[in-house]
Amino acid sequence: MENKDKGTYLKKDRLEMFTDGVFAIAITLLILEIKIPKHEQVHEAGGLYNYLLHIWPSYVTYFITFFMIGIYWSNHHWLFEFIIKRTNHFFNMLNILFLMTIAFMPFTTAIFGDFVMDEEYRNAATTAYSIGVLLPVPPVIFIFLYAMHRKRLIDPRLSASFMKKQIIKLTASVTIASVALAFSFNYPMVSIIMILVTFVMFFLPPDAPEYDDNSIDITK
Amino acid sequence: MENKDKGTYLKKDRLEMFTDGVFAIAITLLILEIKIPKHEQVHEAGGLYNYLLHIWPSYVTYFITFFMIGIYWSNHHWLFEFIIKRTNHFFNMLNILFLMTIAFMPFTTAIFGDFVMDEEYRNAATTAYSIGVLLPVPPVIFIFLYAMHRKRLIDPRLSASFMKKQIIKLTASVTIASVALAFSFNYPMVSIIMILVTFVMFFLPPDAPEYDDNSIDITK
Amino acid sequence: MENKDKGTYLKKDRLEMFTDGVFAIAITLLILEIKIPKHEQVHEAGGLYNYLLHIWPSYVTYFITFFMIGIYWSNHHWLFEFIIKRTNHFFNMLNILFLMTIAFMPFTTAIFGDFVMDEEYRNAATTAYSIGVLLPVPPVIFIFLYAMHRKRLIDPRLSASFMKKQIIKLTASVTIASVALAFSFNYPMVSIIMILVTFVMFFLPPDAPEYDDNSIDITK
Amino acid sequence: MENKDKGTYLKKDRLEMFTDGVFAIAITLLILEIKIPKHEQVHEAGGLYNYLLHIWPSYVTYFITFFMIGIYWSNHHWLFEFIIKRTNHFFNMLNILFLMTIAFMPFTTAIFGDFVMDEEYRNAATTAYSIGVLLPVPPVIFIFLYAMHRKRLIDPRLSASFMKKQIIKLTASVTIASVALAFSFNYPMVSIIMILVTFVMFFLPPDAPEYDDNSIDITK
Repeated sequence: MENKDKGTYLKKDRLEMFTDGVFAIAITLLILEIKIPKHEQVHEAGGLYNYLLHIWPSYVTYFITFFMIGIYWSNHHWLFEFIIKRTNHFFNMLNILFLMTIAFMPFTTAIFGDFVMDEEYRNAATTAYSIGVLLPVPPVIFIFLYAMHRKRLIDPRLSASFMKKQIIKLTASVTIASVALAFSFNYPMVSIIMILVTFVMFFLPPDAPEYDDNSIDITK
Repeated sequence: MENKDKGTYLKKDRLEMFTDGVFAIAITLLILEIKIPKHEQVHEAGGLYNYLLHIWPSYVTYFITFFMIGIYWSNHHWLFEFIIKRTNHFFNMLNILFLMTIAFMPFTTAIFGDFVMDEEYRNAATTAYSIGVLLPVPPVIFIFLYAMHRKRLIDPRLSASFMKKQIIKLTASVTIASVALAFSFNYPMVSIIMILVTFVMFFLPPDAPEYDDNSIDITK
Repeated sequence: MENKDKGTYLKKDRLEMFTDGVFAIAITLLILEIKIPKHEQVHEAGGLYNYLLHIWPSYVTYFITFFMIGIYWSNHHWLFEFIIKRTNHFFNMLNILFLMTIAFMPFTTAIFGDFVMDEEYRNAATTAYSIGVLLPVPPVIFIFLYAMHRKRLIDPRLSASFMKKQIIKLTASVTIASVALAFSFNYPMVSIIMILVTFVMFFLPPDAPEYDDNSIDITK
Repeated sequence: MENKDKGTYLKKDRLEMFTDGVFAIAITLLILEIKIPKHEQVHEAGGLYNYLLHIWPSYVTYFITFFMIGIYWSNHHWLFEFIIKRTNHFFNMLNILFLMTIAFMPFTTAIFGDFVMDEEYRNAATTAYSIGVLLPVPPVIFIFLYAMHRKRLIDPRLSASFMKKQIIKLTASVTIASVALAFSFNYPMVSIIMILVTFVMFFLPPDAPEYDDNSIDITK
């Protein structure tokens, strides 16, 4: 690291700790959206067994959104292990923008879980959920673009073609999520299926990093 | 580590941080299930002392479930100190599945605490709690089996007999929890006693690792 | 470390991370006890300024309890920096018992904040708060006694007189808190003053460790 | 470090972990202030789309406060990377005072978000929010002054002029926030604009540290 950079770049350990904290809380808050029933509600539902079976969409939404946030976390883990080597104040801000969209997910998930079974509100519930799914992608793109610029924060040994592949993948994600959002206004079931398909695709591991052989790591 | 693995395996430190975060939140959320009474409720109960004594099952449930989640945490600590040496994207997913079942416990615990004293709903409340106790075990088995396969993520010096013993113990756990669940539909007290006995057994420390003498650690 | 201990003792880093997580959540949950008013409540109180001034006991309780939990955290930090060198499964359990009492504090604090201004319930509210203050002390004593036994988990260079001083101080704490609890049933103001005095005393830093000169650290 | 200091100063890693935990929770709690509507509320609002559009001030408040807490976190990160080198019990207490004001922000934010659109309560809502913005600054000043005294906790190589510049900046912050608070009682819009301008200024990165060339680091 050149001397003029001293005091500009920060170690990434606290960014990782803080990020893991926000992810852990956002993912655990999801359980609070499955409400504990009052005795009257249980009585109306015809008993506790009936009540607990009746709220099955809440369980499905919990399952899917828990994995979605978990996958974003795993990808952040991969990103900061192989791509990002250090941080600065502005990059911290971009990461906070990203976390803001992750912490927003319990809200859109709760809206979806509470209203998707009601035909009148299904479109709006799916729109809300699609927005929740779409929102984290642009900040990830900003994170890549800012970090890549003059290789200021990334591992400089990474090949240009590898970085390009990541941007293409992210552009594809933002496109798919936008199309799912557009469908939600009139065809919510199409959006839901698109989100589920994307969800399954996300179980594929992220790419292994590819390096230029003749480069050196200036951050070390 | 062979070169082709580069970029496939991840360090386990962030998995541990994230896991500790989820455990810490899930365990601390338990206190939110002991509700702060309104003035009317206290008046009806015949005073604040009466009210606070009357809700004793909440304290017992808090005590037991706090320890249960705590024991799972301690075992995860042991697992990642002695058995698991590294992680990858798919293993992260299995760990998230496990955390999903841990974060589910405050829900089943609250159902149990709120309805177990009501004879009409005792069976269903105990079924819910038994499911909460059973759910985390299968993901732990998946974690073991996936990590053990070709010793991809475990300390390769561990002896085969040691690993086999762990699988047997986990199979026993899943069996006991399933039997407790089966009893809950008609004999909830049997389930409760079984869960309490299992709970006491869990205070025993996990096994000390056993090594093959002539093996080497390929992860180093 | 002798070879037979292998697999019995665990590193303390995850115990510290998990503990910091539970402390961070318990302390931050305190703000949730200051309820956001509904429009009707604000109207009844004669405006938002009046409402916000009227709930001043909530701010005082927040201030004091935040510091109390914070002081416990700072002491845990000191304890694991200078005294405790490693952990095991049973010691993890004792630490979880301690955390259970810390996570209980937002509950007793909320009871106190909501009912202390109501003369009818002041005694019970103070009893609840005193119990909240008393509860964490015995687990800390257990932690000391278990760790000290045959110096299994402590820094073995610490002098016997230093360790004895800690036990004496803890015994004094448990005595004062018990007396405060006893007074709460009839003279809640006495309890409150005792707790405030103890609170101020806690701002004093914990003792600097004292070592036997001719001892060696067997944990290294 | 001189020998007499042994046992007085603590490593700063756990202070950072605990702080990151509190920040992560306080920032994630903000989403809980955007309430999930009941079916009646959605019906009254004329549908779910209408309802979700109607609560736009909640989104704006979420966005701004998330960034505010995030900026405080990023500055804490910078402070502990370049300025603060170690901690002690009293400094822990000052840091807890600071965290207390950060954890208070979700409360003042919720008051603001719920009442700012209601003309009758706008002044009080803005006063509450201004207090929330002002409160964390004095503890940061205390943190600087205490750590700087005889350079007990700071990197001793930092130049006096650099440290002076920080104090001047903080004094300016406390002045601006106080003026915004004063305006809130009669001219809430002036306060809001002042807070927004300050908010934008905070996106500027903190100063790079400046060193005295002929100094040595006594903490190493």
